[in-house]
Amino acid sequence: MSTIDTRPSDNGRGSAAWSGSWTHLSVDRRSPSYCRVTFDHPPINTITATTVAELAELVGLIEQDPDLNVVVFDSANPDFYLAHYDIENDPSRTAALGVGPTGMHAWLDLLVRLSRAPVVSIASIRGRARGSGSEFVLACDLRFASRENTLLGQFEVGTGVVPGGGPMARLSRLVGRGRALEILLVADDLDGPRAEQYGYVNRVIADGRLDAEVEAIASRLARFDHHAIARTKSYVDRVTLPADSEFPPALADFFQMLGLPRQQEQSARLQALGLNTDSDLERRLGQRVVESLPDA
Amino acid sequence: MSTIDTRPSDNGRGSAAWSGSWTHLSVDRRSPSYCRVTFDHPPINTITATTVAELAELVGLIEQDPDLNVVVFDSANPDFYLAHYDIENDPSRTAALGVGPTGMHAWLDLLVRLSRAPVVSIASIRGRARGSGSEFVLACDLRFASRENTLLGQFEVGTGVVPGGGPMARLSRLVGRGRALEILLVADDLDGPRAEQYGYVNRVIADGRLDAEVEAIASRLARFDHHAIARTKSYVDRVTLPADSEFPPALADFFQMLGLPRQQEQSARLQALGLNTDSDLERRLGQRVVESLPDA
Amino acid sequence: MSTIDTRPSDNGRGSAAWSGSWTHLSVDRRSPSYCRVTFDHPPINTITATTVAELAELVGLIEQDPDLNVVVFDSANPDFYLAHYDIENDPSRTAALGVGPTGMHAWLDLLVRLSRAPVVSIASIRGRARGSGSEFVLACDLRFASRENTLLGQFEVGTGVVPGGGPMARLSRLVGRGRALEILLVADDLDGPRAEQYGYVNRVIADGRLDAEVEAIASRLARFDHHAIARTKSYVDRVTLPADSEFPPALADFFQMLGLPRQQEQSARLQALGLNTDSDLERRLGQRVVESLPDA
Repeated sequence: MSTIDTRPSDNGRGSAAWSGSWTHLSVDRRSPSYCRVTFDHPPINTITATTVAELAELVGLIEQDPDLNVVVFDSANPDFYLAHYDIENDPSRTAALGVGPTGMHAWLDLLVRLSRAPVVSIASIRGRARGSGSEFVLACDLRFASRENTLLGQFEVGTGVVPGGGPMARLSRLVGRGRALEILLVADDLDGPRAEQYGYVNRVIADGRLDAEVEAIASRLARFDHHAIARTKSYVDRVTLPADSEFPPALADFFQMLGLPRQQEQSARLQALGLNTDSDLERRLGQRVVESLPDA
Repeated sequence: MSTIDTRPSDNGRGSAAWSGSWTHLSVDRRSPSYCRVTFDHPPINTITATTVAELAELVGLIEQDPDLNVVVFDSANPDFYLAHYDIENDPSRTAALGVGPTGMHAWLDLLVRLSRAPVVSIASIRGRARGSGSEFVLACDLRFASRENTLLGQFEVGTGVVPGGGPMARLSRLVGRGRALEILLVADDLDGPRAEQYGYVNRVIADGRLDAEVEAIASRLARFDHHAIARTKSYVDRVTLPADSEFPPALADFFQMLGLPRQQEQSARLQALGLNTDSDLERRLGQRVVESLPDA
Repeated sequence: MSTIDTRPSDNGRGSAAWSGSWTHLSVDRRSPSYCRVTFDHPPINTITATTVAELAELVGLIEQDPDLNVVVFDSANPDFYLAHYDIENDPSRTAALGVGPTGMHAWLDLLVRLSRAPVVSIASIRGRARGSGSEFVLACDLRFASRENTLLGQFEVGTGVVPGGGPMARLSRLVGRGRALEILLVADDLDGPRAEQYGYVNRVIADGRLDAEVEAIASRLARFDHHAIARTKSYVDRVTLPADSEFPPALADFFQMLGLPRQQEQSARLQALGLNTDSDLERRLGQRVVESLPDA
């Protein structure tokens, strides 16, 4: 596999790199220590090969910035934070992403590097985050979610495949065996209060106060000493982060299962029902995923 | 120790084995992918050597069935899910159970194998599950409990012995050190809401809706792809299951302590108070266990 | 480093050692199996080198007492359980504490030994416990807190240093990565209900019932068999306690950062604002710590 093809790194370019030509997100460098990233990929913020490439580049900038303390990830779409992965009917685009600096596939690589970066990453969640969208928020350090307007889930098993981006490793440590197995195997949506109860998110915040509270937390972190944050986080990392070796086998399973004929029929049924569009299926995917089953 | 003496295995017998002559439980194979097991051992669903032998056989069937996705364990007695172990005044019966395929005592063996089976096991809990009853639900993958009618606990330390069936290993990982130590050392009952808050169960469900909600979850799982379930569970297993070596030492302690003269006096006092019968003692065992203490 | 200088051990002195001349706490040996320790170091129960020396001696007594089942730690000051560490403007006093029997600095040593002692330690929390005060309660086995009158936190990162007494190791295992990172990096106070929700404490109890409920739990534990408690706890210890090697690096970071010129200026600003006194700063330290930042 080739090394991931990203745009030039930040070496020698300074903050100009941050205001690059992003297409699936926007970046607002509010101060040297505080950056806000907003997902904006209409209609429902699916994650595609392009999103992965842009996030990989962004994580590279985050890792190398000596002044940055905190990055907040939010969404321009109040109903969809990050819908899930969209293979764009062309698995070769995803395969072509190649591997990142850790030697893992670009998606696993950027999640692992974000988790280890000497920066506090915050997912400010409003709307739906399922599949790889859930995997992204699980790789962030802190997760705050709208009490009234959040749906989180790993729906993959409901479509016949293993989740590929590491939720078995991350959810098991975050919410414990019983609740991780429920989330992954029952594969239904969790609303905000249930996600909070299970520990899937740090806590929910009333929708009308979410932005202000996350802003207050981020502004506070932006003022703290970078070294104190980075060192303290590194000690938590040692105790809580999965070994890199846990991730690739499940992704290999995911790709292998995705290639099965039955899975292509399954994908076709889901698309016919409205997958990847702003449809009722997407709004109630946890519940409706069963409609795509062979015997439905 | 001899190998556990179970009835003939499923080899070559097909589904007939499932409808065998169970005495402490009933088995309803609702479909090739869905099985329901109901504990029914009057008066209070104690676990005896016979129950262990039947569960060991059942787990063997579960492990070997290529079509099975989900097994739900419920109780015919709304007040007692599984009361606790009953040594039947004859420890030799329990000792004679021998070891199972893992090389561990039959009780540890069947719990470990159930946890690893490529099937989703669900404890649908109504009533009391203490001691080995609690150990059984802890070995299931998912635990749903009646909000109004659940009492869970490990009362063993209150009677002077170490819990033998693995709750130190399982509870510590499920609810964390502080709450595990409280459950195990204070040894009192937890009601449904407290069990949910601590993570002892996935969540509570209003008693009137428990059966329907568990049925909906099981029916959903029954329709999913077996391989996707089995592979996904296997990745969670790697992160969350205790090493086999954690279990035998505590069971050896349990048997050793059980043989002490002081413990036989303790057992006699508990029996005089109503142990193993549908008594007020059994209904409030967490609270009343102190009445059996030597200085009570 | 020299071995910690404590007063004579309990060898040959019996219970007389328990009623020694404590200055920052009082000890009430209610029965051979039950001891209550009350922090009483006006005005706000800061932890100083003297407190550490007394706690180290106390832990030695706890470890060696064959009859003791339970120790409850409470506070004579309803507003401050244990404020935090006070370096007394003289870091050499803290450095002079030396190492304990584990070979670690006296503070780490006594926390590690308390965690491993064959006795149930209970923090009955009313008021504020921040920094090393939080580290102490995290090293106790059980934590019960006043619902209305509790503030817990690790404010160290807000002052530019890494927490030194092990909360990265302990909180990560107790509350999971996301919530541990929030507590440690955002460095704000958690009130009782939030601490309960996160698993930072076992549970909160209405302030008016806290003392009676903890007393009931302790009295119950005092009646149980010592060996059953000790053995059961030892099995939980194996699964849940951090390796000793996790602790010293963060404490070394703490001391190194404390010696930086910028940190001495920071300390001076905090003292000018009221640190170590019964001040509004101390009452709202989580919120107000930002006022001491260089650019405030």
